[in-house]
Amino acid sequence: MNNTMKCVVMARPEPNALELWEKPIPIPGDDEILVKVKAAAICGTDVHIRAWNDWTQKRMMPPVTIGHEYCGEVVEIGKNVKGIKVGDIVTPESHLPCNICPDCRRNNRHVCQHTGLMGVTRDGGFAEYVAFPAEIAYVAPPGVDYKTLSILEPFGQAVHAVMDYPVCGQTVAIVGCGPIGIMCVMVAKRMGAAKIIAVELNEARGQLALDNGADVLVNPLKVDPVEKIMELTGGVGVDIAIEMSGSVIAEEQATRYIRPEGKFVVAGLPSEPFTFNLSEFAYKGITLHGAAARLLYETWDQIDMLLKQGLRLDNIVTHELPLEKFNEAIDLMEQGKCGKALLIP
Amino acid sequence: MNNTMKCVVMARPEPNALELWEKPIPIPGDDEILVKVKAAAICGTDVHIRAWNDWTQKRMMPPVTIGHEYCGEVVEIGKNVKGIKVGDIVTPESHLPCNICPDCRRNNRHVCQHTGLMGVTRDGGFAEYVAFPAEIAYVAPPGVDYKTLSILEPFGQAVHAVMDYPVCGQTVAIVGCGPIGIMCVMVAKRMGAAKIIAVELNEARGQLALDNGADVLVNPLKVDPVEKIMELTGGVGVDIAIEMSGSVIAEEQATRYIRPEGKFVVAGLPSEPFTFNLSEFAYKGITLHGAAARLLYETWDQIDMLLKQGLRLDNIVTHELPLEKFNEAIDLMEQGKCGKALLIP
Amino acid sequence: MNNTMKCVVMARPEPNALELWEKPIPIPGDDEILVKVKAAAICGTDVHIRAWNDWTQKRMMPPVTIGHEYCGEVVEIGKNVKGIKVGDIVTPESHLPCNICPDCRRNNRHVCQHTGLMGVTRDGGFAEYVAFPAEIAYVAPPGVDYKTLSILEPFGQAVHAVMDYPVCGQTVAIVGCGPIGIMCVMVAKRMGAAKIIAVELNEARGQLALDNGADVLVNPLKVDPVEKIMELTGGVGVDIAIEMSGSVIAEEQATRYIRPEGKFVVAGLPSEPFTFNLSEFAYKGITLHGAAARLLYETWDQIDMLLKQGLRLDNIVTHELPLEKFNEAIDLMEQGKCGKALLIP
Amino acid sequence: MNNTMKCVVMARPEPNALELWEKPIPIPGDDEILVKVKAAAICGTDVHIRAWNDWTQKRMMPPVTIGHEYCGEVVEIGKNVKGIKVGDIVTPESHLPCNICPDCRRNNRHVCQHTGLMGVTRDGGFAEYVAFPAEIAYVAPPGVDYKTLSILEPFGQAVHAVMDYPVCGQTVAIVGCGPIGIMCVMVAKRMGAAKIIAVELNEARGQLALDNGADVLVNPLKVDPVEKIMELTGGVGVDIAIEMSGSVIAEEQATRYIRPEGKFVVAGLPSEPFTFNLSEFAYKGITLHGAAARLLYETWDQIDMLLKQGLRLDNIVTHELPLEKFNEAIDLMEQGKCGKALLIP
Repeated sequence: MNNTMKCVVMARPEPNALELWEKPIPIPGDDEILVKVKAAAICGTDVHIRAWNDWTQKRMMPPVTIGHEYCGEVVEIGKNVKGIKVGDIVTPESHLPCNICPDCRRNNRHVCQHTGLMGVTRDGGFAEYVAFPAEIAYVAPPGVDYKTLSILEPFGQAVHAVMDYPVCGQTVAIVGCGPIGIMCVMVAKRMGAAKIIAVELNEARGQLALDNGADVLVNPLKVDPVEKIMELTGGVGVDIAIEMSGSVIAEEQATRYIRPEGKFVVAGLPSEPFTFNLSEFAYKGITLHGAAARLLYETWDQIDMLLKQGLRLDNIVTHELPLEKFNEAIDLMEQGKCGKALLIP
Repeated sequence: MNNTMKCVVMARPEPNALELWEKPIPIPGDDEILVKVKAAAICGTDVHIRAWNDWTQKRMMPPVTIGHEYCGEVVEIGKNVKGIKVGDIVTPESHLPCNICPDCRRNNRHVCQHTGLMGVTRDGGFAEYVAFPAEIAYVAPPGVDYKTLSILEPFGQAVHAVMDYPVCGQTVAIVGCGPIGIMCVMVAKRMGAAKIIAVELNEARGQLALDNGADVLVNPLKVDPVEKIMELTGGVGVDIAIEMSGSVIAEEQATRYIRPEGKFVVAGLPSEPFTFNLSEFAYKGITLHGAAARLLYETWDQIDMLLKQGLRLDNIVTHELPLEKFNEAIDLMEQGKCGKALLIP
Repeated sequence: MNNTMKCVVMARPEPNALELWEKPIPIPGDDEILVKVKAAAICGTDVHIRAWNDWTQKRMMPPVTIGHEYCGEVVEIGKNVKGIKVGDIVTPESHLPCNICPDCRRNNRHVCQHTGLMGVTRDGGFAEYVAFPAEIAYVAPPGVDYKTLSILEPFGQAVHAVMDYPVCGQTVAIVGCGPIGIMCVMVAKRMGAAKIIAVELNEARGQLALDNGADVLVNPLKVDPVEKIMELTGGVGVDIAIEMSGSVIAEEQATRYIRPEGKFVVAGLPSEPFTFNLSEFAYKGITLHGAAARLLYETWDQIDMLLKQGLRLDNIVTHELPLEKFNEAIDLMEQGKCGKALLIP
Repeated sequence: MNNTMKCVVMARPEPNALELWEKPIPIPGDDEILVKVKAAAICGTDVHIRAWNDWTQKRMMPPVTIGHEYCGEVVEIGKNVKGIKVGDIVTPESHLPCNICPDCRRNNRHVCQHTGLMGVTRDGGFAEYVAFPAEIAYVAPPGVDYKTLSILEPFGQAVHAVMDYPVCGQTVAIVGCGPIGIMCVMVAKRMGAAKIIAVELNEARGQLALDNGADVLVNPLKVDPVEKIMELTGGVGVDIAIEMSGSVIAEEQATRYIRPEGKFVVAGLPSEPFTFNLSEFAYKGITLHGAAARLLYETWDQIDMLLKQGLRLDNIVTHELPLEKFNEAIDLMEQGKCGKALLIP
């Protein structure tokens, strides 16, 4: 292989500073692996990075190669690496927990307050090659397509959220049916949910939810979702609501159609303040739990189980573009015109 | 005994309609017991009832004898009653769950949406005698003083909230140190909390918290509670915060000093909308759970255990007045000039 | 209706004392309902009763009408009964918990040490009519066949056992594939188990397990079940084993093929002492939990959910006989020559 | 410092092959630390090693320096070590989990089936110096005596077992009051157990249990422990039994005095097969859980919390001998003539 590679770099600390660079192929450290990237997916975070928003400004020191959803083939391994070999097909967790803080020590690595992030605090995968610690690599079973493999990181958010409380035999509302919401529907169906209610404004996405296992669609533009869901549940409310919309309106509504002692799993992160009637919520004994990112590494074990059961995500991928067209791909995501869009180096 | 008795009745559906009436002594039903009241305590709810607030208007159909915190001696039992005998000293749960709805069926009687309430939907205990279903009676062990016994219902709120997540070995913030907050401190101390941080504006109440087991007092009028608590916990945050203040400001602050994957137990019910940063909250994996009222009847078993361990609450009672002075006693509660105030029929 | 009815009575405290009697139709108490029996199923317990075994001798005082698995139509209701009406199709829980002991009070009615039992401590359902407390009645949704309805009580054992720990995404061994084991397979499949391993000596039953959702059959007569299951699980062991065989040999083997920190749910009750290597078991951090009977009434809610999802059990019923042929039906069960056998009054 | 050191080595694969050797001081690897040992404690495992029992034969390849309970001062750190510095006082976890197997990946390192063991599979701490991975080091807070520090590893077994189910407010039996059983009593007391029943044959040990927080002592040589404990618990049984005796007789008895749906935590590992009535056990819904070793690293966080709360273990140490008298110290342990015995290099 050459000594240099193409990569998409946030070049300067300012909006719209993404550039295609030629950089040396990274050399993996003793505990790291080098991966030849097969495909990489655009995440909403990449939109935010390009816009150089607040969240990014606090974390990134350009120039940094972006991209944290991707898969590829292992081409080199560091001397301490165990359990991975050249030729393995891998995809990484995006978080790089510190492993020594009190939260990591009690196995809450997913909420490590000192975590690094691939493609943000360290060079990521919108590139021909990428190096990262072997610890965060997931080695895929044979026979899984690259589309599915390139979006396992966001899939893990769906798995984490759906697995947060046992859905088997429960009535579950999935609020917001973008790509991750659809993945939630797929997982909840397989995990034995008794009834899946999809809540989504966009009819096309709603239809996709129904196609992937939702039992009923509630469109808040057409009906009052609280009234409708109370009616659908015989006046009781849903056992579990899983929030993927990031809409504070949808979230407030959810607080009202969850049954007493029900569960509200929040993974959609709103940018505005969230206001609701805490008294009614508390009086009904509801539990709200934040389930962002993926449990390290329990969620990855569950992903592995689901892949081995035959679950695939390739129908979530709607676009493929060459690496050079990174801005076009990010535009697609920004405008909501795609399921998931891939870059092919 | 006479055929009539004195009682405090909400006479009409309007503010300030409490009157001292002479009414027939109630006759217990087949599943009920008749109790001669020894002492009854004023609750914040009694203030609201007198003010004929929204909450009361939705639930009460006057005339109703009020009062739902009290103790007394069993003087008569219905023919179906098992496990209780004349002469027993009892104090009741205040909720009258329907026992047949889906929530009751899964043992979530404490959040029954059809629950009756002693002293609200049915005649209560600000009276010489009161009848109620044997099912809600707690039979006290010998040797417990009447002051303690008359306030076990609110104590149960403290027990429920503290027991919601195991506090043993945990750093716990108790937010709001009114009578129930102080009770929380007492219970958390006995249950093995590693460090108890009392959060309270009122120095006298704060001192009471320290006297009853809190390790440190944080007064938000003097220090920034978030900064101070993060400092006290080595930058990590508390494992569990228990909210008894009902202040949306205090509640918002709590969301910021709870550690990742920590627990936020809310029993203080604010009257205003609650606004906070859900993204930060969710991103840290925090759990918020409403723990109002008492688990039926697990909390009462825990109360029983604590009384048998020697815990007493008589120091929480600061005033005793004759039944006739009900308005004076309610004034004391309204003005926050007391711990708990008792009426003696 | 007549004033008398046919019923199957254990007439005297001695083996083989079952007789067909003509008795007055029972009159329901204030909290009870009277049910015209449509079909009743033979349970292994009925075999033990006829044999007048130790367990029976400790609990039954003949004469008693036996039978605790049955369904029928409500023909009369007591004056206190709420939520049930004449014409409803019902099937009862068989336990009659005392409701006042410490275990009942903490909602562990299923392990009430003072429980009554339909068809053992009180007249049961091998009869044209039966009366029982409304509290234990399950009202069936419309459209469920009588075969399914008559065996919901044993089905509840399967539901309880499978729901004991979340099986979704787990590798689960079902040990013993008699009627209840088959039901376990059906429930585990619907609840999202990742892989179901049926362990069964009898090839016909094993095939039935495969037909109803098991992924693989392990026959301990043909292979070493521990070696085979370790191999099937990549050397890790199963996450959860559910024991329905009552065989101490099978149970000992299960202790060895459960993964570290895995779960062993025991509902099959052996008659011999159980011997195993506790050190290995404990050292691997395994959990053994007894899950007999049904949670009252959470399991019934789950049964309701499963019926509404479309699950049916009619294929488990292999024989139907008139009530008079009770001895023949019990013979079938004793000889293991049936799935479930029904008596039709 | 010199280049060589004294150490106690299992010299050959045969009984009684312990010898005092002079060996080079170990050089810590990149991820390791070198510790000057202050004190080391004898464990029952050291008795087994000297006897070259089955367990040892399967794991140890002599010559190996033994000893896995000790504390000391860090004198050198590897280049990759973070969070530990020269001069820190540390004591290690004894397990060396593989960190890559499925059990480690789901944070069940304590049951890693590929774990290494200090003093068994790798040179341990009966030596002047010892090197081990920084990952397993616990850095002690200031002011803790060396006696306490040298026995934190066995203390962790007590902490793990007591913390397995919340003991706060529960009636707890501690079965077997050797050094670890006494530690269980100390922890259960601090964690808010409502009533602690110590079960112990040896009156001196039983008295020590009472002195350290047990409420009542039951001596099975004097009374029937099942009858007595049922009586002490009002006929209900204990909520939780914690087994530290390793006696199959005591364990069988415990199965009978645990309440329905109660918990049986087993950390005492019997050498004989364990036989009990599984039917009765299962029928009562009891849970048996193995809680050996320490959760990595949650238990160590709990140890840290307890030390910071002021708990000390120096009164458990009854003997101190120079390193050379290792055989004498092991004799003391073998004969049960000590609390804990320390070797001082």
